[in-house]
Amino acid sequence: NSSRDVVTLVKSILFHRKNPLHFHLVTDGVARNILETLFHTWMVPSVFISFYDADELKPEVAWIPNKHYSGIYGLLKLTLPRALPPTLARVIVLDTDITFASDIADLWAVFARFSDKQVIGLVENQSDWYLGNLWKNHRPWPALGRGFNTGVILLHLERLRQVRWEQMWRLTAEQELLTMLATSLADQDIFNAVIKQYPWLVYPLLCSWNVQLSDHTRAEQCYSEVSDLKVIHWNSPKKLGVKNKHVEFFRNLYLTFLEYDGNLLRRELFGCISGPSPGEKTRQALVELEEDDACYEFRQQKLTVHRVHLTFLPYEPPAPHPHDVTLVAQLSMDRLQMLEALCRHWPGPMSLALYLSDAEAQQFLHFAQASEVLSARRDVAYHIVYREGPLYPVNLLRNVALGQAHTPYVFLSDIDFLPAYSLYDYLRTSIKELSLATRKAALVVPAFETLRYRLSFPTSKTELLSLLDAGSLYTFRYHVWPRGHEPTDYARWREAQAPYRVEWAADYEPYVVVPRDCPRYDPRFVGFGWNKVAHIMELDAQEYEFLVLPEAFAIHLPHAPSLDISRFRSSPTYRLCLRTLKDEFHQDLSRRYGSAALKYLTAQRQL
Amino acid sequence: NSSRDVVTLVKSILFHRKNPLHFHLVTDGVARNILETLFHTWMVPSVFISFYDADELKPEVAWIPNKHYSGIYGLLKLTLPRALPPTLARVIVLDTDITFASDIADLWAVFARFSDKQVIGLVENQSDWYLGNLWKNHRPWPALGRGFNTGVILLHLERLRQVRWEQMWRLTAEQELLTMLATSLADQDIFNAVIKQYPWLVYPLLCSWNVQLSDHTRAEQCYSEVSDLKVIHWNSPKKLGVKNKHVEFFRNLYLTFLEYDGNLLRRELFGCISGPSPGEKTRQALVELEEDDACYEFRQQKLTVHRVHLTFLPYEPPAPHPHDVTLVAQLSMDRLQMLEALCRHWPGPMSLALYLSDAEAQQFLHFAQASEVLSARRDVAYHIVYREGPLYPVNLLRNVALGQAHTPYVFLSDIDFLPAYSLYDYLRTSIKELSLATRKAALVVPAFETLRYRLSFPTSKTELLSLLDAGSLYTFRYHVWPRGHEPTDYARWREAQAPYRVEWAADYEPYVVVPRDCPRYDPRFVGFGWNKVAHIMELDAQEYEFLVLPEAFAIHLPHAPSLDISRFRSSPTYRLCLRTLKDEFHQDLSRRYGSAALKYLTAQRQL
Repeated sequence: NSSRDVVTLVKSILFHRKNPLHFHLVTDGVARNILETLFHTWMVPSVFISFYDADELKPEVAWIPNKHYSGIYGLLKLTLPRALPPTLARVIVLDTDITFASDIADLWAVFARFSDKQVIGLVENQSDWYLGNLWKNHRPWPALGRGFNTGVILLHLERLRQVRWEQMWRLTAEQELLTMLATSLADQDIFNAVIKQYPWLVYPLLCSWNVQLSDHTRAEQCYSEVSDLKVIHWNSPKKLGVKNKHVEFFRNLYLTFLEYDGNLLRRELFGCISGPSPGEKTRQALVELEEDDACYEFRQQKLTVHRVHLTFLPYEPPAPHPHDVTLVAQLSMDRLQMLEALCRHWPGPMSLALYLSDAEAQQFLHFAQASEVLSARRDVAYHIVYREGPLYPVNLLRNVALGQAHTPYVFLSDIDFLPAYSLYDYLRTSIKELSLATRKAALVVPAFETLRYRLSFPTSKTELLSLLDAGSLYTFRYHVWPRGHEPTDYARWREAQAPYRVEWAADYEPYVVVPRDCPRYDPRFVGFGWNKVAHIMELDAQEYEFLVLPEAFAIHLPHAPSLDISRFRSSPTYRLCLRTLKDEFHQDLSRRYGSAALKYLTAQRQL
Repeated sequence: NSSRDVVTLVKSILFHRKNPLHFHLVTDGVARNILETLFHTWMVPSVFISFYDADELKPEVAWIPNKHYSGIYGLLKLTLPRALPPTLARVIVLDTDITFASDIADLWAVFARFSDKQVIGLVENQSDWYLGNLWKNHRPWPALGRGFNTGVILLHLERLRQVRWEQMWRLTAEQELLTMLATSLADQDIFNAVIKQYPWLVYPLLCSWNVQLSDHTRAEQCYSEVSDLKVIHWNSPKKLGVKNKHVEFFRNLYLTFLEYDGNLLRRELFGCISGPSPGEKTRQALVELEEDDACYEFRQQKLTVHRVHLTFLPYEPPAPHPHDVTLVAQLSMDRLQMLEALCRHWPGPMSLALYLSDAEAQQFLHFAQASEVLSARRDVAYHIVYREGPLYPVNLLRNVALGQAHTPYVFLSDIDFLPAYSLYDYLRTSIKELSLATRKAALVVPAFETLRYRLSFPTSKTELLSLLDAGSLYTFRYHVWPRGHEPTDYARWREAQAPYRVEWAADYEPYVVVPRDCPRYDPRFVGFGWNKVAHIMELDAQEYEFLVLPEAFAIHLPHAPSLDISRFRSSPTYRLCLRTLKDEFHQDLSRRYGSAALKYLTAQRQL
């Protein structure tokens, strides 16, 4: 959850900044994985990122009893002078519930105003907590007057190391804990206790550098004019739900960045020579594209590096199991309503890539949090791939979802399919019985479709077959593209009692279960057409057997054609380009698999 | 089209401002209607709007031959000292292709630096145009050096009136036109010619107040540092397509405001007493809502004032015709793909309300501009109602679309229905033959539905009936809610050769053709349920006859359930609240129609 908050903070900083920035992130392993991928794919020029392992630092503060909702993470701030590299002389320390309304360089400039003895810049508390009069027998930790808030700190690391900060805070904490027993406000109690003892350490910052929006706050006295507002701090467990006369104003600033298109922040700084920027190669490749190429939009889309936010919602990987299988699929906003049904049909782990704008990601978040079905699951990983460019990057999305599957096997499905209720269990059994660990095979899940909205979903193969006979179901794409699934041999499947092997044929695109380390999808196929066909061809080239499972099935539900598909279906340029892409794919295939790949070209030409 | 541009400009100004603002808009009648509604519903505190009729001012400049793409509108700037109220002493004049990257108050402050003689603040041109060396025999109008750009002007109206500006520019223009024959850059040529003659009039502004992004520009020399960037001017007919080393950076600033949620700008200014703000009443009503009311979200949604941008795309009202009829419907993003089919089925005028976010409105714009079918039509009016709040304000949307219909009659339809190809003509004939002008009647268009995706749409009643018999079509909601259309009497319709009258019954919700001045929909019904039922009840209360047309039909196409509907279908609170809203509606009905309305309550209770 914090990895979402920190993105909003970072966006607000990047929006106002005019200088290179180096973010030092203290995270656990999960957040590191998320944020490393996010910044790597964000490719913001003149932004540098370093990570520090919170788990390594925890023992330094784990001995301090603490009652604050931030848990142990708040306390870690105390360890920064030691945890950060000795070459690092000064840092600005920020909570994740902070929004910048100004250039952070102006805050950095305040270091220059520190006297020789001052080592910590802080804003006074805007709540009455440390006055100790909130309720009868309210006894806060010692503080100077109202105390200071530690949501925003200027930390002069160099000098803190010189004055032996570590000993200082440890001694103070130990001493106070004798009577206080535990901290109430985590690190903030200890910082204040130290400052009470050594008041010369602190440089008091202007209140506008940390406008604190708790329920009971004097924040209003601070911002008499909006021009004074520089940093907003949602330092209440209620966050945006806080009561404050001007909360609407602050909320709007926050929402601005929450929904802000992060791609817009990938802008070069002016007058700032910082070496080649991370996106430079892509930009160069884009410039070299020829605008009159029929495939211009396709190539442009393929070159685009999409920002990726892995596990946007809390996720727990399944316990390791040698035959477990993850359902892999991708979707955009218009298929969100499929998720609940999918969760009901597939009780196992899923890895889903969602193609959304920043604003849509927030809508998705609300939807998922409001859904009982979705919020009951922790084994469904939602990976946001942020929208950019004119075409739906279907294979990139599949690769993101596939790359994040944590089970040995994956079921490569599409979002419009509902699997048989028994499929998850049946697949695991089949994987075991067929000894897939020692046999290179792709298990085919036969695909059907209904053209009706209200379908009572078959609970067995027998039921499915009678719906098929009644004309309520069809084999998938029976009317428009039978070739895609013909090799599955539905007639044989009707009668089959055991898995049977089928041979690849041109344009075959079944839904398959394969090991997680199977070949990736070819990202040149964007938009619609040939994206699965190419992947199945590659499985065949790598000599995967195709084994059809006699009891497996999935049913495609009807939906309105997406905007993307209707835009291209009728376009001659689109068909022309698709042919070019196919040719290029065949050439690559020949290069990689030699004469064995000739068969695909021949099959293609015979069509 | 300009009314869309000006919104982006205004957003960029409001985003940075800290002071009250008064916008003076010189517009034609069409833009005035759009912008008046927009600002009225935007309700930004401390923003004042005045309109001036461009058509009245045109004669003042129409005599000047002009070759610039801005047409006569650019030239109108010359008339401002006379056109604006004499009490107005100073204005900042802006083109619509401007984006602010700073607080406009800082530009206003520059007036204070004018000497006593200076009356016009301008930035030097960043193109080489006025140097007269762009091509052989290139002969621009006279200018001081590079000349000045008139995209951003500080106009000291008071002093301009004193120095007799009008005579000044007219004399200069007449004189130059003797040899130049026409202006090339509209007002800019004349401003520069005047300044060449009276150089002391001009106060040269810093270049960063008007960074000009034409293809060939010295803009780069201006913004050596981004901190200097205050105003961006897309002064090329290519606009965002312009070639410039840093265009990506500028485009991102522009896109920021293009897609910015305008609702976020409805924020109060701090430390600024400006009388009661336009949204104050609403805010007060919202505060008074009881949070534990089962209908809290419904009431909140009903109180919300949505920003409305009428005719977001160019629109030409149909020529007046006594029997003409406009199709009225509403939709959100997930139904966009219906528009092309609808255009094919309904060749007449349409008035559609679209419920979109600012970013979605841009997606819609791209979609509509890329669609051959949509861009071929000028008789379809698209009204954007900007999203806000948790529930779909279905009846507000219907009222917006209904209020903008320009024909005497309206067909109140829903976006998922495709009318019979002949319906538009048939309705006009029926309206005439049934003499609706002198008879208070609602013509019922019988509704059908298909549960299949691929339907070959019936071209006649006979074809429709055979599809019905074959089970490819059903009467609308036959399976789930037959009561909604039962009174239409489909059995009778099969045989009917002439229109027949039917009686209202509880829960009747047919699709009807009525005069444009029919009752509005009740906006308390938001989300889903009872929104059409209440309207039909009110038609009955006002003694409209219901006449079913024997040859009319429309067919509902299947679609995935929207997110909104699935959120509430299963909620007991939702059903409870819907009952409360119904009761309140019945009470209001009794109040308005007296004992005649008793019948509705009785009918309701008998269910």
